[in-house]
Amino acid sequence: MDDRRVGWHTGAVASSRSIGFAKGHGTENDFVIIADPEGELKLSDDDVAFICDRRAGIGADGVLRVVRSQYVPDWGGDQDLWFMDYRNHDGSTAEMCGNGVRVFARYLIENGLADGPMINIATRDGVKPTEALGDGRYRVAMGPVIVDQPEVAVQPAGLEMPLPARAADVGNPHAVSFVDDLEKLDLRTAPTWSPVLRFPDGVNLEFVRRIGPRHIAMRVFERGSGETRSCGTGTCAAAAAAAVEAGQTERPVSYRVDVPGGTVEVELHDHQSYLTGPAVIIATGELILPG
Amino acid sequence: MDDRRVGWHTGAVASSRSIGFAKGHGTENDFVIIADPEGELKLSDDDVAFICDRRAGIGADGVLRVVRSQYVPDWGGDQDLWFMDYRNHDGSTAEMCGNGVRVFARYLIENGLADGPMINIATRDGVKPTEALGDGRYRVAMGPVIVDQPEVAVQPAGLEMPLPARAADVGNPHAVSFVDDLEKLDLRTAPTWSPVLRFPDGVNLEFVRRIGPRHIAMRVFERGSGETRSCGTGTCAAAAAAAVEAGQTERPVSYRVDVPGGTVEVELHDHQSYLTGPAVIIATGELILPG
Repeated sequence: MDDRRVGWHTGAVASSRSIGFAKGHGTENDFVIIADPEGELKLSDDDVAFICDRRAGIGADGVLRVVRSQYVPDWGGDQDLWFMDYRNHDGSTAEMCGNGVRVFARYLIENGLADGPMINIATRDGVKPTEALGDGRYRVAMGPVIVDQPEVAVQPAGLEMPLPARAADVGNPHAVSFVDDLEKLDLRTAPTWSPVLRFPDGVNLEFVRRIGPRHIAMRVFERGSGETRSCGTGTCAAAAAAAVEAGQTERPVSYRVDVPGGTVEVELHDHQSYLTGPAVIIATGELILPG
Repeated sequence: MDDRRVGWHTGAVASSRSIGFAKGHGTENDFVIIADPEGELKLSDDDVAFICDRRAGIGADGVLRVVRSQYVPDWGGDQDLWFMDYRNHDGSTAEMCGNGVRVFARYLIENGLADGPMINIATRDGVKPTEALGDGRYRVAMGPVIVDQPEVAVQPAGLEMPLPARAADVGNPHAVSFVDDLEKLDLRTAPTWSPVLRFPDGVNLEFVRRIGPRHIAMRVFERGSGETRSCGTGTCAAAAAAAVEAGQTERPVSYRVDVPGGTVEVELHDHQSYLTGPAVIIATGELILPG
């Protein structure tokens, strides 16, 4: 009470806002989920950065705002879908997030906003059909993966020679290198790539070790974020590059992909890929945004 | 619904537990606060580690369980106080946490568990009288600080020569070194100290730069945690060592201490020290502990 009285004098408390939230993760790519069905919530970049701050805020890799697509001005598709408004931890928007879609789907089902098991989720990268498998895992149609020749060179810190890498497009840009030892890689600083102009807007870098004919492990350095525990589109890029590298031309072909935050499965079809992995909601509550 | 049905089959959901929580921080030393007034909650080390996991859980430096002291078996003092059961992020217990006490006090007041402005808080290091200043800051009596001669040598990575350090006791052990440049220090790996047996159970290491006659900045490497954004007892140790170093024998003497997570004030009296700093509660809700 004491605090509130003086907070009123300074305006600090009087102008704060309380909003509902949930926290969840997919292979330890974690999100704060905020329901805003009618698109009334204004979240500034600073608001998002505050929410994602791991010590001063809740802490997350990004925010998933849950809004009916009819309230999304730029959305020209089905008006009744739920739209995943993904914001990076600095407040910038992103097209898509394969781990985020699974958590988003689980949130919809747990809150009675969708029945499942099949849910079409609207994103800035189009509609992502998502299936609740009923065992805590979700299967997302990620679109096609296009893999290029190994014409890129990626240079992580401490390696004497750059690694040859294949560009891969999963709606966003990736470059996939194959290595014998993932543990030794130093990803505390950003690797460089050449030619630089191959990826003028930056690129996500996957480093892959083959474990078996349809089993790989990877680490990922995400543009704008640094090394992360998991990257959904990155696992699709890595599996597709691994299939090309091994001359596996039959489709569908399925890969188990181990990432630092867990394990997912990637199925490669002729013109489609599917990412299957866990989604967990671990908390719900109210958070206080500073004025 | 789909998930719950199968969760029931596997037992994963049926055996999970939902508990209330709040999240808060003091100078970005952050905590999950759990109310357990009658001491009924069993939190295993794994439960605490899960809650403090910054991606799979809520994320925090530690857990503050709020329990009436009459339900704390080892407590021999006043039975009506609120006891701060502090657990480190690995589940181990700690005696005291100067930033935690402020957040604990704010939680008590905001939830109507104490009236303030003066609250006596029971800890494993005894009773800590705490005052809500009414401006979002809290002032905690931390007990005396005992500063030793500079007879310890502390060696951070990358420095050619070890730094002379003063041992300081604030209920827990510290060693304080003075440096000209805090930015350059590499605290990604643990500094060593000599003689090793001066601190058989480990020591918290403060690195201090003097800014003015009563103003210092510091970075801290906490035993068992690594570099942190703030350490309450560490700021008291640093201020007391700075006063000794400067020959400031008058009491009380007051220091402003800048840490990476914010700013606190330390008042040194003859047989007592007071730590004043902010405390913030940013969220409340329910979290789900895995079975």
